[in-house]
Amino acid sequence: MAFNSSSVVVRMGLSSSQDAASVDSVTLFVLLLCSCILFGHLLQKSKWMTESVVALIIGLITGIIILLTTGGKSSRILVFDEDLFFIYLLPPIIFNAGFQVKKKQFFRNFLAIMLYGVIGSLISFLIVSLGSIQLFKKLDIDLVTVGDYFALGAVFSATDSVCTLQVLDQDETPHLYSLVFGEGVVNDATSVVLFNAIQKLDLSHITPANIMQFIGNFLYLFLTSTLLGIVVGLFSAYLIKKLYFGRHSTDREIALMILMAYFSYMLAELLDLSGILTVFFCGIVMSHYTWHNVTENSRITSRHAFATFSLISEIFIFLYVGMDALDIEKWRFASNSPWTLFGTSAILLSLVLIGRAAFVFPLSFIANLFRKSRNDKIAFKQQVVIWWSGLMRGAVSIALAYNKFTTSGHTQVQGNAIMITSTITVVLLTNVVGGLLTKPLVRFLLDPHMHVGESSISSGLFSAKNLPLLTNGQDIESSIDAGNPLDSSKLVHQYWRTFDDTFMRPVFGGRGFVPIIPASTTEDNIH
Amino acid sequence: MAFNSSSVVVRMGLSSSQDAASVDSVTLFVLLLCSCILFGHLLQKSKWMTESVVALIIGLITGIIILLTTGGKSSRILVFDEDLFFIYLLPPIIFNAGFQVKKKQFFRNFLAIMLYGVIGSLISFLIVSLGSIQLFKKLDIDLVTVGDYFALGAVFSATDSVCTLQVLDQDETPHLYSLVFGEGVVNDATSVVLFNAIQKLDLSHITPANIMQFIGNFLYLFLTSTLLGIVVGLFSAYLIKKLYFGRHSTDREIALMILMAYFSYMLAELLDLSGILTVFFCGIVMSHYTWHNVTENSRITSRHAFATFSLISEIFIFLYVGMDALDIEKWRFASNSPWTLFGTSAILLSLVLIGRAAFVFPLSFIANLFRKSRNDKIAFKQQVVIWWSGLMRGAVSIALAYNKFTTSGHTQVQGNAIMITSTITVVLLTNVVGGLLTKPLVRFLLDPHMHVGESSISSGLFSAKNLPLLTNGQDIESSIDAGNPLDSSKLVHQYWRTFDDTFMRPVFGGRGFVPIIPASTTEDNIH
Repeated sequence: MAFNSSSVVVRMGLSSSQDAASVDSVTLFVLLLCSCILFGHLLQKSKWMTESVVALIIGLITGIIILLTTGGKSSRILVFDEDLFFIYLLPPIIFNAGFQVKKKQFFRNFLAIMLYGVIGSLISFLIVSLGSIQLFKKLDIDLVTVGDYFALGAVFSATDSVCTLQVLDQDETPHLYSLVFGEGVVNDATSVVLFNAIQKLDLSHITPANIMQFIGNFLYLFLTSTLLGIVVGLFSAYLIKKLYFGRHSTDREIALMILMAYFSYMLAELLDLSGILTVFFCGIVMSHYTWHNVTENSRITSRHAFATFSLISEIFIFLYVGMDALDIEKWRFASNSPWTLFGTSAILLSLVLIGRAAFVFPLSFIANLFRKSRNDKIAFKQQVVIWWSGLMRGAVSIALAYNKFTTSGHTQVQGNAIMITSTITVVLLTNVVGGLLTKPLVRFLLDPHMHVGESSISSGLFSAKNLPLLTNGQDIESSIDAGNPLDSSKLVHQYWRTFDDTFMRPVFGGRGFVPIIPASTTEDNIH
Repeated sequence: MAFNSSSVVVRMGLSSSQDAASVDSVTLFVLLLCSCILFGHLLQKSKWMTESVVALIIGLITGIIILLTTGGKSSRILVFDEDLFFIYLLPPIIFNAGFQVKKKQFFRNFLAIMLYGVIGSLISFLIVSLGSIQLFKKLDIDLVTVGDYFALGAVFSATDSVCTLQVLDQDETPHLYSLVFGEGVVNDATSVVLFNAIQKLDLSHITPANIMQFIGNFLYLFLTSTLLGIVVGLFSAYLIKKLYFGRHSTDREIALMILMAYFSYMLAELLDLSGILTVFFCGIVMSHYTWHNVTENSRITSRHAFATFSLISEIFIFLYVGMDALDIEKWRFASNSPWTLFGTSAILLSLVLIGRAAFVFPLSFIANLFRKSRNDKIAFKQQVVIWWSGLMRGAVSIALAYNKFTTSGHTQVQGNAIMITSTITVVLLTNVVGGLLTKPLVRFLLDPHMHVGESSISSGLFSAKNLPLLTNGQDIESSIDAGNPLDSSKLVHQYWRTFDDTFMRPVFGGRGFVPIIPASTTEDNIH
């Protein structure tokens, strides 16, 4: 049963020792979350630290402390559980990303994002898998099946969209941000879908037929997931527009938005689609239509509430990974052969570096072919940043690795133990190094005066972002877009705009739809 | 481990049958929550339906449908789990209650609330326990120990503060609301503390000594819990005032408030105190100090976000109880002796009615002795409303009953099964009947023209409540208070006000403390 086991075991004060332990851990964990937020805030001014790195480090330190206090028995107050991650922590982050993403930027770069996210992931997947098959033979660790190697490929083709969110600034470099982040989301979906497909695929004899079938299956998943997200989002918009017109109730509106968003994710999971994609597009649609159909209070609240959920989840994840990294059990297996561990980690890391380089630069070249104006083309320096900032591997990789190489958080086979530990090593390295170096790198490679177009947009949004309603911000965006109608993407956008205004808005509301504000009567009856 | 088991088992699409089932149930449950909100909104205009009753009914209907589809195998998609209830659902409700409660009203009625909540609960506890000991002998069901009877007393002395929230309107009848609701919270705490104390108490030989010890223990718990809540609340206020002065970040502020509030609850549970009391007072302090130290956006967001959490939790609980009510297993045991079930339910129900009458009227009389102005005295008609609206038994009772009479949701002994089923019967009856009749009763007994003082206050707050900031509302309140300084409670309030202004506010901020708004820089760096 779903929720039967879904809670901390506290018999309301009648807590037995084991129960008390779990209350301990939750209380401590909440406290750590608070401290992460505080330190994150204090260290924010430093251009080097990101909140994720802070959380990772605090997690590691806590792990060490617990390790010492428990006399090396255990390092973690919580066992990393990929279900918790995929069901509770990831959805709010991805939804918020979709909800807050600058839609114009995202859709302007849609082609490039898809190239990176889908084709790119596949390329790096192949490179990592095949590379590891070749290189792991040299060190005498042999994984059980060839499937394990492909799983490894999927695990390490998952860039961490959460980290990149933290490292790149949507307002300093919106163009890059939307590219890297958009790729991140699509790539999360890709790698999860890949991973699942690998499990099902019979790798003993790969025929062109089942490769085609694999690709078809992949595209099907991709489109249906997206569609589901859009449908649910539109439904929520329609519902709130029809239902609450005239008598609004902020709390109910927000509750509905949250529940519908989560529903889209769960439904996608239920239908074996990619919940990540679904909830992401649900977020986009909600911010385009639903968000405009609610009261001003609801708009402010929803925007900040979603951001807050996302923030807490992000910190939670990194704290979690940091703490779990030091779990003795895993290392005990690996410690018998430290060099093997070192070797595998080094191999995987280099494969990740190569794999990413192997698609960023060629695909950027292809993407640039479709870009008319010189100003729009992805410059080489930007390509370097894209390559670098997508190197981080994070919670998705860990979750996938756990799912493949452990049985319920415990690592039996040595080969598996090494896979887990080297995954963690790579994640920690990429995060700490990436987290520390990316901001300076971005500043070094792209000094703001280089791309005037961007900074002007961003500053426009920037100023708008501080207004309670973002409509102005969006107007600025659109006015900028309306600027030079030569570009094809602009034209597409113009068509979309007319379609939106004539067919969608009348039904689903959206910007310009002004709900009747006096919410008093209903507002107050709720409690 | 805390979170190890704390999630729906979904292996990211690789879901086995059993896993799929749990995803089903969660998805369905989210859908039901949505529908509850929708129907609640649509039925709101009707003076009879409350959201809780809607949720209960929808829950029951769903239970029936599942019962039919599964061919009588099971009625519940979720097993009622008192941990889920006490750890995740109750805290947001009680915190929000503390956060939104009209403090003036609450503290003006403090004496009466304490009388009802503590002494009253004890009286009804004794009446139910002793009464059941006497009457249950007549029907030949004998519970195992005398402790069971006392547990039963505790179970049925827990009024459902959540229902009363839904039934009484803080703005129509603020005076009554604060009385009944305030009692509800204190009484929740009392009954949980009682319940735990009973478990520990050796009832074979009750000496004056261990009765005194019991009372001492009770008072200790009560005061320490309250103090803890206040301390954590003040700490959060101080932290945010010091830390964010100058550079605010809405998301972090809200995240901190949520986490600190939850921390206070968990810490209380950890120290075997009453988390309910703690988080309630934490909410009061936060709304008095912390809330004023944050940006305007944070204020709007926090107020509505907390209300939304609370709303969702409330609906969740009632849906839950409604669904769980039809669980076959329990009824199978009871169905062998339908008359015994009927008898016990009738007995318990009447004991509840008597037990409540036995303290409301005498204690109201005592409370009135301390009230100077005739306008302040609790009129008889109001006493009737207090008596009636506190009759509902809800999730707390069910949770306690489950904790006592079942082992992890399964009812073995027939006596226990009957206790569970009759508890559910009483809860359903009191909720449906109460939910349907209370609003009309209130309207019938207290027509608004009777108590001008109230309605004027409420209307003042009412209008103020629609403003983004509630400060004005509070000013209105205070100005009204300043009105006639004859009343002792007013004088006390004056002293408190001076103390607050001279000592507390300078340190902890609070109303009048204006944070520097431009949050742009930090706001945007978060993502």
